Amino acid sequence: MNTKYVLGLDFSTLSGRALLVRVADGKEVASAVHHYASGVITHRLPNGAGTANLPPNFALQDPKDYLDVLKTAVPAVMQRAGVRPENIIGIGTCFTASTLLPVESDGTPLCLMPQWRSNPHAWVKLWSHRAAQPQADRINEVARQRQEEFLKRYNGRYSAGWFFSKLLEIVEKAPEVYDAADEFIEASDWIVWQLVGHSRRNNSAAGYKAMWLKDKGGYPQFDFFKALHPKLEHLLDEKLGGLEVYEIGANAGGLSRKGAALTGLKEGTPVAVGIVDAHAAVPACGVIEPGRLCMVAGPRICHVLLAKERRDIEGVGGCVEDGIVPGTWGYEAGQTSGGELLGWFCEALPTEIRLEAERRRLTVQRLMEERAGALKPGQCGVLGLDWWSGNHCVLMDPNLSGMLLGLTTKTERHDIYRALIEATAFGVRKIVETFTKAGLEVHDMVACGGLPEQNKLLLQIISDVTGKPVHVAESSHAAAHGAAMHGAVAAGKTAGGYPTLQDAARHMAHVRADYYRPHKASHEIYNQLYAEYEKLHDYFGRGVNPVLKTLKRLKTSAA
Amino acid sequence: MNTKYVLGLDFSTLSGRALLVRVADGKEVASAVHHYASGVITHRLPNGAGTANLPPNFALQDPKDYLDVLKTAVPAVMQRAGVRPENIIGIGTCFTASTLLPVESDGTPLCLMPQWRSNPHAWVKLWSHRAAQPQADRINEVARQRQEEFLKRYNGRYSAGWFFSKLLEIVEKAPEVYDAADEFIEASDWIVWQLVGHSRRNNSAAGYKAMWLKDKGGYPQFDFFKALHPKLEHLLDEKLGGLEVYEIGANAGGLSRKGAALTGLKEGTPVAVGIVDAHAAVPACGVIEPGRLCMVAGPRICHVLLAKERRDIEGVGGCVEDGIVPGTWGYEAGQTSGGELLGWFCEALPTEIRLEAERRRLTVQRLMEERAGALKPGQCGVLGLDWWSGNHCVLMDPNLSGMLLGLTTKTERHDIYRALIEATAFGVRKIVETFTKAGLEVHDMVACGGLPEQNKLLLQIISDVTGKPVHVAESSHAAAHGAAMHGAVAAGKTAGGYPTLQDAARHMAHVRADYYRPHKASHEIYNQLYAEYEKLHDYFGRGVNPVLKTLKRLKTSAA
Repeated sequence: MNTKYVLGLDFSTLSGRALLVRVADGKEVASAVHHYASGVITHRLPNGAGTANLPPNFALQDPKDYLDVLKTAVPAVMQRAGVRPENIIGIGTCFTASTLLPVESDGTPLCLMPQWRSNPHAWVKLWSHRAAQPQADRINEVARQRQEEFLKRYNGRYSAGWFFSKLLEIVEKAPEVYDAADEFIEASDWIVWQLVGHSRRNNSAAGYKAMWLKDKGGYPQFDFFKALHPKLEHLLDEKLGGLEVYEIGANAGGLSRKGAALTGLKEGTPVAVGIVDAHAAVPACGVIEPGRLCMVAGPRICHVLLAKERRDIEGVGGCVEDGIVPGTWGYEAGQTSGGELLGWFCEALPTEIRLEAERRRLTVQRLMEERAGALKPGQCGVLGLDWWSGNHCVLMDPNLSGMLLGLTTKTERHDIYRALIEATAFGVRKIVETFTKAGLEVHDMVACGGLPEQNKLLLQIISDVTGKPVHVAESSHAAAHGAAMHGAVAAGKTAGGYPTLQDAARHMAHVRADYYRPHKASHEIYNQLYAEYEKLHDYFGRGVNPVLKTLKRLKTSAA
Repeated sequence: MNTKYVLGLDFSTLSGRALLVRVADGKEVASAVHHYASGVITHRLPNGAGTANLPPNFALQDPKDYLDVLKTAVPAVMQRAGVRPENIIGIGTCFTASTLLPVESDGTPLCLMPQWRSNPHAWVKLWSHRAAQPQADRINEVARQRQEEFLKRYNGRYSAGWFFSKLLEIVEKAPEVYDAADEFIEASDWIVWQLVGHSRRNNSAAGYKAMWLKDKGGYPQFDFFKALHPKLEHLLDEKLGGLEVYEIGANAGGLSRKGAALTGLKEGTPVAVGIVDAHAAVPACGVIEPGRLCMVAGPRICHVLLAKERRDIEGVGGCVEDGIVPGTWGYEAGQTSGGELLGWFCEALPTEIRLEAERRRLTVQRLMEERAGALKPGQCGVLGLDWWSGNHCVLMDPNLSGMLLGLTTKTERHDIYRALIEATAFGVRKIVETFTKAGLEVHDMVACGGLPEQNKLLLQIISDVTGKPVHVAESSHAAAHGAAMHGAVAAGKTAGGYPTLQDAARHMAHVRADYYRPHKASHEIYNQLYAEYEKLHDYFGRGVNPVLKTLKRLKTSAA
């Protein structure tokens, strides 16, 4: 009866999950999900907060939805598991990033206050908010001129979706919100604040999204921010809640009385410093050392490789010391193809495919996978470039777009579906080879996230294309599982947890016994197709033929 | 009551049409269609003639279906019009080509004889039959070695779909059929034989499909055929019903007693020499002189330009003296995109589009046209190469395939639909510019066929892309209308017809008053997109990057 558990909380794009995990062996005991009432807010503020349409490329959230996860999913998972609060030795959280919100000095989000409720810039700006592109452009310009070190770490491109792009957007578009806010904070840090009663900013979000370099003394100098905008001269002193940043896995403090009341858990229970959701998943896949690529595959794919040293690698957008697994540098490479691309395709399938799927009680994706899986490598006749949402790794160019080549009047829907999967796998191989060329070996891969469970064909083809084994995480909720492991580290060894994330992983993280092995004959055919992919990758992606930019320019000016 | 009429018969891919036209002004009085019972036979011989599956790429027809057009559509149109047989002064026919059949000396098709009925090679091989590619390859090889003049006229490529490719296929695959046949004949000549009781081979099919060069003494020498296959040494003497070829518009003879019995028309009524269907449509569009491009647009688009002289033009597959309008050289350029490409796309539209089309009582094509038409040039963001069925003009390469570039997760179905239409229009411009560069001016265009009536957006975009006016033929059945005009010429002036096809056209052919004018602003944007199209056209089409061939090779070896 004194079995010890940890609780992992994963705040993802549309819902939050509470997962209860046994500390000794990582067994997942129970899980509960709460779907955000307001979801992703892209057109109009909810609940009468505003009547005007939001500007294009806005993606907001309501922080009340996050609190509702604490209020509903946590008690629900405890009830399902039949576990008593005193048996929970630690809590860990992970969150989408960069997801920014302006708050009062006590942590109250501005958008929950009546006087700010109708101002969109007072709300949570989700990771997928893309309206700050002009601000990102300016940041990149100024950073280039000043040769800021952080720009090198982000491989020359600070993204529109990241912390300071959104913050600069607020300064420029809603200076009154900037003035009113006491702090701007990542949601991954804000949620910890709600639990422990004070802020402990994490080095995962700060390192990957907010220019914070551990080995270079933290954030850029004040004059960089001043050069961006005069109002930002005192940003570092006044609006970031101090300059301290805490290492993931550290104990952020015990659950406050208020946090205990919210969740029904025991006051004082250790809570870990927050972490970016995809990064939490990495140790949950057992990836704690160099050589094994972790693929966190959902709508998009986040590839993480650990290394003992830092290198400049072409087109890898993030490399942070201790940001994913302490003691290593974590390289992050984003691939925009994945579930989003396959979903785009399956949304518009013809009636007879929908009917057959219904009749056979399959999802249309599963039916397409089945048909595409009956084809041999090369048989679909179609080759794709997987840049439907731009290229975020190697080329790092959001203005690129996708291609399908080899279409004939005999091309069927499942031919194209297979080509999209193959293009995704070619994109994976490109990333693997980029690491390999930089001297970081990749022996094999572990996949986690929703996509690997939905799409076995994708994993087999990734294995065939790369010629490497692909493992799958035992957990279906790797991010929440990883967050729970952080909770075990925050609890520490004496409380029954683990001294390090590596120790936690050795006991709590598992991969499935079955894995995907490359077929030699398929690999050889894919070598030929990959050579074609690479040629087109460089032709369209490296400026030999800048037609994709021309198309985007003409589209923009026509709209 | 002595108004004079001519009857045009158009044998197309799935049906035959009888059209009754007033001689004086070309008014279409009545029309009747008979759908072929067996349609296009691609999988198994019909009516228990055979149980085995046909080989791949077979496309056969049953000549009984053609006779049924004579028996049913002709009496039907006469009855509808209330016109007496003696008021029909002439009959003209046109037919798909090259559509080949082996016959007995009296014209009986071998496949209608019990002993040959189960042999697929005894049946009519339709224009779309593509199984004779190896034979076409051999013809091209031998012709190249011997520097045969005809190869130059066909721009270096004799097609798998043409007369002697199919004939060589029979020699090689079914020598017993070759031996048993007294003649091999184009269906356009066979149908005239059924009407007049003797064969009169036409210079349209012979010139465009069967190596017959009027200015070089007709067919190639016997030793060319011998070099193809020993059995073909005596082909010219023994299997073509003599070497005479007759000019289109000429009188093939009066309707025989048997022909009169079949159709209910009057014995002795003049019947014109046959002609290829697309070629019959040209004068029916009023195109009888150089400078105006005729687009016969159905599943594919046949472009015809007339000229006073012959020139070697890159990538134009046919140039025949007097083969379309006597007194001119007719240049034919085939474009494989058209209705087939748009149809391929619309076949697989999602449910909600089908439902909306149903609700609004539109075809899905019309609904897509409406949505695509709401976009401005460049706005769809997608650029295509229109080679879904290969490229038959300029590049003349059936192994090319299509491309879509610029796809994003925000790309909608109507964006792609517009890109397919634009790609088709870019293909048209490429053909126009090919003629222009060779010194053959194109002032404007006239379109006819099913596509222009179904898709007004296509014509507007062709006008915007080329910067030239696009007219539309008054007749919805231009091929049948043109066939009727041939009937009027066969009847001759003394019988109330016309002395020449030009005279017939001046009285009987009309274009609509409304036409499509290029919009200057659209044309300027399309100039930019066309420059991109041309660059990709050469990159993928001229061997800079032969990836399309590689995809085809890998697909073939995987199957």
